[in-house]
Amino acid sequence: MAANLHSRTETILRRLVRRDAAPALRKVLAKTRAEDVAAVMTHLTGTEMRRLYSIIEDVDFAAAVLANLPDDAVREVAGEMTGDHIVQLLEMMEPDDATDVVEVLPHELRDRVLRQLVHGDDDDVSSLLAWPSDSAGGIMSPEVFVLPQTATTGSAIKSIQQYSEDLPTFYYLYIVDASERLVGVVSLRSLLTHPEHTPLVSIMNSDVISVGPTQDQEEVARYVARYDLLAVPVIDESGRVLGLVTVDDVLDVIREEAAEDMMLMAGVHGGAGDALDHSGRSAVEMTRMRSGWLLATAFGGILADRIIHAFSGGLPVEVLAGLIPVVMGMGGNVGIQSTTLAVRGLATGSVQIGGAVPFIVREAKVGVMLGVLYGVLLGAYGLASGWPDPYVGMTVGIGVFLAIGIGSVLGSSLPVGLSRLGIDPAIATGPFVTTAVDILGIGVYFGVAHLLFPA
Amino acid sequence: MAANLHSRTETILRRLVRRDAAPALRKVLAKTRAEDVAAVMTHLTGTEMRRLYSIIEDVDFAAAVLANLPDDAVREVAGEMTGDHIVQLLEMMEPDDATDVVEVLPHELRDRVLRQLVHGDDDDVSSLLAWPSDSAGGIMSPEVFVLPQTATTGSAIKSIQQYSEDLPTFYYLYIVDASERLVGVVSLRSLLTHPEHTPLVSIMNSDVISVGPTQDQEEVARYVARYDLLAVPVIDESGRVLGLVTVDDVLDVIREEAAEDMMLMAGVHGGAGDALDHSGRSAVEMTRMRSGWLLATAFGGILADRIIHAFSGGLPVEVLAGLIPVVMGMGGNVGIQSTTLAVRGLATGSVQIGGAVPFIVREAKVGVMLGVLYGVLLGAYGLASGWPDPYVGMTVGIGVFLAIGIGSVLGSSLPVGLSRLGIDPAIATGPFVTTAVDILGIGVYFGVAHLLFPA
Repeated sequence: MAANLHSRTETILRRLVRRDAAPALRKVLAKTRAEDVAAVMTHLTGTEMRRLYSIIEDVDFAAAVLANLPDDAVREVAGEMTGDHIVQLLEMMEPDDATDVVEVLPHELRDRVLRQLVHGDDDDVSSLLAWPSDSAGGIMSPEVFVLPQTATTGSAIKSIQQYSEDLPTFYYLYIVDASERLVGVVSLRSLLTHPEHTPLVSIMNSDVISVGPTQDQEEVARYVARYDLLAVPVIDESGRVLGLVTVDDVLDVIREEAAEDMMLMAGVHGGAGDALDHSGRSAVEMTRMRSGWLLATAFGGILADRIIHAFSGGLPVEVLAGLIPVVMGMGGNVGIQSTTLAVRGLATGSVQIGGAVPFIVREAKVGVMLGVLYGVLLGAYGLASGWPDPYVGMTVGIGVFLAIGIGSVLGSSLPVGLSRLGIDPAIATGPFVTTAVDILGIGVYFGVAHLLFPA
Repeated sequence: MAANLHSRTETILRRLVRRDAAPALRKVLAKTRAEDVAAVMTHLTGTEMRRLYSIIEDVDFAAAVLANLPDDAVREVAGEMTGDHIVQLLEMMEPDDATDVVEVLPHELRDRVLRQLVHGDDDDVSSLLAWPSDSAGGIMSPEVFVLPQTATTGSAIKSIQQYSEDLPTFYYLYIVDASERLVGVVSLRSLLTHPEHTPLVSIMNSDVISVGPTQDQEEVARYVARYDLLAVPVIDESGRVLGLVTVDDVLDVIREEAAEDMMLMAGVHGGAGDALDHSGRSAVEMTRMRSGWLLATAFGGILADRIIHAFSGGLPVEVLAGLIPVVMGMGGNVGIQSTTLAVRGLATGSVQIGGAVPFIVREAKVGVMLGVLYGVLLGAYGLASGWPDPYVGMTVGIGVFLAIGIGSVLGSSLPVGLSRLGIDPAIATGPFVTTAVDILGIGVYFGVAHLLFPA
């Protein structure tokens, strides 16, 4: 079935849920993939979500839908279930998916579920919860298919056939020594293309790319992308395999991190762990989330007003006022450009936290060049409009030059500084950087006017 | 080797290139992965890039480095090679990687290389160039491992062993009928876990997720991510397999699209096909690229000045001027919030081009609520600062309310409108939306003042 057919199924499902047409829903659900049901649910309200979810009868299917839901939808759907019900669903999931679900449950429910899981024989989930959720340990699956150094292609295939039922999806065979330290990796392709009694050690690649459990998930994603891996093993300090991060988890990490950066930069984000798809949210919820970020802008604007009043005594404000937008706009936009480059650079690794000086220096140079270019251009405009008085043109020219310089230096260094403090650099931008650049730009503009105009 | 060791190799490589230490470089290169060499090269200048590349002796390794370089680095490195040299390198690559290289070559060189490729027996590349580079056809590999419906697990393994040398990396076996139409898919895992003479038709999944060749690469990426696929076949209208998009290509698409959206939104982008990693660029190049986008802001600012002058006759400009920053800042930031949501929503599919009305309506509602909230708050401030004259407060309150409303409606509808016209919606934001919202906001602010203040 071609992929584009699914959007039609989604539209139908959404309509049926809104009409509360249970029998028709059951029929459509039977022919729909769990991933598509989860995708539809992200566009529904909380009540509609629970209604649709309650219609699903098959436990396996219900578990698959839950595993594919974003965090806030999981909270909505699972938040009102009994502990027993959730545990039953969790047992159907891969441990890393189950961990993601447990992590977002309300506090009390979460503790209850964890106690039940530890009592059972499924303590994979609680061991995964020990790692930060945005680290390699937090996104890995603890089920890894490892083979001893003595294995051959033939014995490997037999093991695969024997443990087939309990095996997670696997892409590579990892070879460990007698002390369970990782020594090599064999692809399924090599397994198939070598004769039956080939020792795996003779065909394994011993230069295995691996990560540590506390390594940041963005860094893990970078390595998987760079080396085109399907999975990367997570090893402890002594080289023992703790788990496996698979490419599908990495895809989710990359999607989430990029979206999160954009949302944070624009000030449309509810903070760490918040959902990134806001399409199911009401206008009231969105207003609540966004109004907080705008407070910075409002107070910044008031501060700018105070600065203008403090400086404007004796100045031809009616002439200077018209050029406030151009000074603010130029400084603000250059600031956003520099911050975007800094945030992206920090995310992709092209800007190093410890070695960001060359980047900031280059941005400062760009600021000087853009400042000269637009300072001269807009200064000439100011000169023409203030003619025969030369001071308006000079004020605008110098003001634009300084505002652009402030934008490029502040915009490039603030995210780096925040990163050093362990704060997500994306949070520095949008409202904050533009507001800071606005206030400083206005201050500089009127300050320059104050110095230039004859008292 | 743990992944974090590589950044040390990168630092060493970079230093050696800058010092032009060829013998030492050769030693380090021999122990470095092609992907890491490519990563290092993105941080070098054009001359340094070519210097490092010329030291590589092994053709296979040189081809692998070239295949992993971003577009502008490919242009830098390959732009001065002979046609023969490039063809030699291309023949070592997977066809989809070769296509990516050919696509970015200077026009004349590209034609020469294509003629040589067509004369040889390698016309995969030219057939791939027939599809748009951002479609499924443009990113697919034409080498797909297909088996007839009559195949068994045993015969499949024999085919794999026989064609092992020519086979691309493969993750699934695709089953085709007598007219070569795709009818099912078998995972390598099923192949290994079923007895030797099992007919593949009995274990294949006939509900194959596939895409068409013209489908947008972002849409393809969405499906691969949603269904956790390692590869998705590209089929023509009659169901015949044209090629395969693999998860590593999808990872690159997701990384590029997200980065591109951010760069476009901020106005730090050289247009379609431009590199996303600007770390190797000089300050002059960056200034040239960014100055164009800022022209919109500069002209917008001049327009705002004209509007203020046209409206300000008879108004207490010295009082109103101080509040220009707050009106502009509020409108602009709400505009960026709405645009970011629109751009992300269009990219992830949660906002549909044809069904964006509910989204725009919600944004308008949010605009009204935020407008009332901050209109009252800042109106009160204006009232206090203009006391006993009530008109300043009223002007600021209504001005902020209208500017926020304009920001939310324009910010949410402009990207949707551009998408309908087939233009990348991310281009709408940054300089353009903020400038448009600034001008309209200033116009509305002084327009309201003009109406309210007694002549």
